[in-house]
Amino acid sequence: MKLKIALLAGDGIGPEVINEAVKVSDAIAKKFNHEITWTPALTGACAIDAVGVPYPDETHEICMASDAVLFGAVGHPKYDNDPSAPVRPEQGLLLMRKKLGLFANVRPTFTFPSLIDNSPLKRERIEGTDLVFLRELTGGIYFGEKGRKDDGETAFDTCTYTRSEVQRLAKKGFELAMTRTKKLCCVDKANVLETSRLWRETVQAMEKDYPEVTVSYEFVDAVAMRLVQWPNSYDVLITENLFGDILTDEASVISGSMGLMPSASVGEHTSLYEPIHGSYPQATGLNIANPLATVLSAAMMFEDAFGLKEEAEAIRAVVNKSLEQGIVTEDLVTKESKAYKTSEVGDWLVANL
Amino acid sequence: MKLKIALLAGDGIGPEVINEAVKVSDAIAKKFNHEITWTPALTGACAIDAVGVPYPDETHEICMASDAVLFGAVGHPKYDNDPSAPVRPEQGLLLMRKKLGLFANVRPTFTFPSLIDNSPLKRERIEGTDLVFLRELTGGIYFGEKGRKDDGETAFDTCTYTRSEVQRLAKKGFELAMTRTKKLCCVDKANVLETSRLWRETVQAMEKDYPEVTVSYEFVDAVAMRLVQWPNSYDVLITENLFGDILTDEASVISGSMGLMPSASVGEHTSLYEPIHGSYPQATGLNIANPLATVLSAAMMFEDAFGLKEEAEAIRAVVNKSLEQGIVTEDLVTKESKAYKTSEVGDWLVANL
Ligand SMILES: CC(C)[C@H](C(=O)O)[C@@H](O)C(=O)O
Ligand SMILES: CC(C)[C@H](C(=O)O)[C@@H](O)C(=O)O
Repeated sequence: MKLKIALLAGDGIGPEVINEAVKVSDAIAKKFNHEITWTPALTGACAIDAVGVPYPDETHEICMASDAVLFGAVGHPKYDNDPSAPVRPEQGLLLMRKKLGLFANVRPTFTFPSLIDNSPLKRERIEGTDLVFLRELTGGIYFGEKGRKDDGETAFDTCTYTRSEVQRLAKKGFELAMTRTKKLCCVDKANVLETSRLWRETVQAMEKDYPEVTVSYEFVDAVAMRLVQWPNSYDVLITENLFGDILTDEASVISGSMGLMPSASVGEHTSLYEPIHGSYPQATGLNIANPLATVLSAAMMFEDAFGLKEEAEAIRAVVNKSLEQGIVTEDLVTKESKAYKTSEVGDWLVANL
Repeated sequence: MKLKIALLAGDGIGPEVINEAVKVSDAIAKKFNHEITWTPALTGACAIDAVGVPYPDETHEICMASDAVLFGAVGHPKYDNDPSAPVRPEQGLLLMRKKLGLFANVRPTFTFPSLIDNSPLKRERIEGTDLVFLRELTGGIYFGEKGRKDDGETAFDTCTYTRSEVQRLAKKGFELAMTRTKKLCCVDKANVLETSRLWRETVQAMEKDYPEVTVSYEFVDAVAMRLVQWPNSYDVLITENLFGDILTDEASVISGSMGLMPSASVGEHTSLYEPIHGSYPQATGLNIANPLATVLSAAMMFEDAFGLKEEAEAIRAVVNKSLEQGIVTEDLVTKESKAYKTSEVGDWLVANL
């Protein structure tokens, strides 16, 4: 099979972790007789530095012309203290989501038996946790009208959703639930927000099309609690953009494997795969960042974008093996193991595929 | 001292836990020679049942004419499956907050040494946790314009803040920080939202008036993570209404003492004190609900509304004693202790004051 992949390494540790995911993907391609063409493109702070905008048109065209996008991370500390700077790396992220029509962000949280004790939560609370958030990614308060009034003394942001935006996200949720334990939780704040009431009534109306799926409706504040108390009581959760931003990040720390969590963003055009950790500027260039989340994002890409399940499983198997044998970067080191470099972990994965 | 207190027991377990707080408050008043006049008033589902609205004018007048309000909980399962019902208990809550001008919700999260092992988090993660959220309570997306367009196919909610709304909340945050470890965290989403940028610039401009306070600015998604990872790294946190709703509930479960957490809502008129747990409908009338959060809310009331610190300390001391001696309701029972009834815990507190 011929696989055309856009490679958006981004900023900070992005290039380093992407590099290892490319090595592993190439090795898998060789083993299974696929041919990958990687097309690198600029995004984030490095794009601003080079061409003045964080998501250049050329990058967009490369993404559109590819079968999948593998993404590292964007962000640079020089933008951190001025969130109102006219050009910022995050704007590129939002523009990319919008232009690629990436309306669903797929964020699994699961545990690795060998890493459970890294979690801030007690073992008995998280054992068996295996949940997936579908976060709406191109609507809501992120993209609604915003601005100032009264000489800048009043600020406003508008959260807007249409029924069809909710439907297309919820459809993915129901379909995903059908492939898992058939449990779907719709997270909203329908006791206060009109957009949440639209979400709830839309999902309620879709229930009849998926009679096998058990749907629950929970308020976002209650979910924020239960995620810490009983994360393993959830399976598939669907929610709007801002709630999803907060809750998926909260969920990512409960497993103790934050540095290992992959994600996908899917929608109308090319799908995008990326580790959930950020650009981790302090570690840039040190060859110490954990590449496994990016490698596992590549596995998601093989499975979901190309339908290559066996290839994906082979990647996951070798990642598990590296964890069991303690071939890990410093963030996962225990008393018994030593810290490997980013590139050493990648080399080991390639050698053991 | 003469203390005029409005008593809003509300729904579910509200009346039962309020009853114990009244017993303890009366005992304290007797001991310290104060005279309390309690004026009961309807709110929540019981008010809807009685007079058709969840926060009747008469209740509001009673609150306005009192020196403090002691509040139980509102909510009834018959409203749960229909968040768009025309009259709902929560509307009473929002109307009450608005009409009483309760713009700051004070939500401490702290640990009780004897209960640390109840937490879903590991002991070493939460030991020493002692943080306070100041949640803005009468602005933001809760109170902005909301509705439908396009024949109901599009829904919108508007988040609005004015500089002076941010200032009055932030002022309380700085002042509180000055009485504690002088650390203040402003939680926002300034990389996306215009209202958050107003929050951030307003707080930044106030820093010079409180040179001793160290202020940090963190995004809401990052705080949702760090609250689980390192809750004891926070002290005072200020944030807008919706973020506060989510994060204060998340914070409440980390200590393992959710059933014990008090809160205050303060602002332009009479202040209100309430336990953070809800109306817990399943336990209604069973005399099993934990009254300690309400008793500790009464302690906050003595200290903050009346300036009676010694009285507050006496209440806290007897609550600690009850915990140490295992005089607790079933939610806190361990292998070594038996479960006491709600009213038995209250009796014990009164007897041991
Ligand atoms: C950087 C920021 C705009 C972004 C978001 O809020 O969506 C990030 O937090 C994420 O979740 O991908
Ligand atoms: C019941 C609801 C409207 C309310 C809120 O969201 O403010 C509650 O969750 C709270 O935090 O007091």
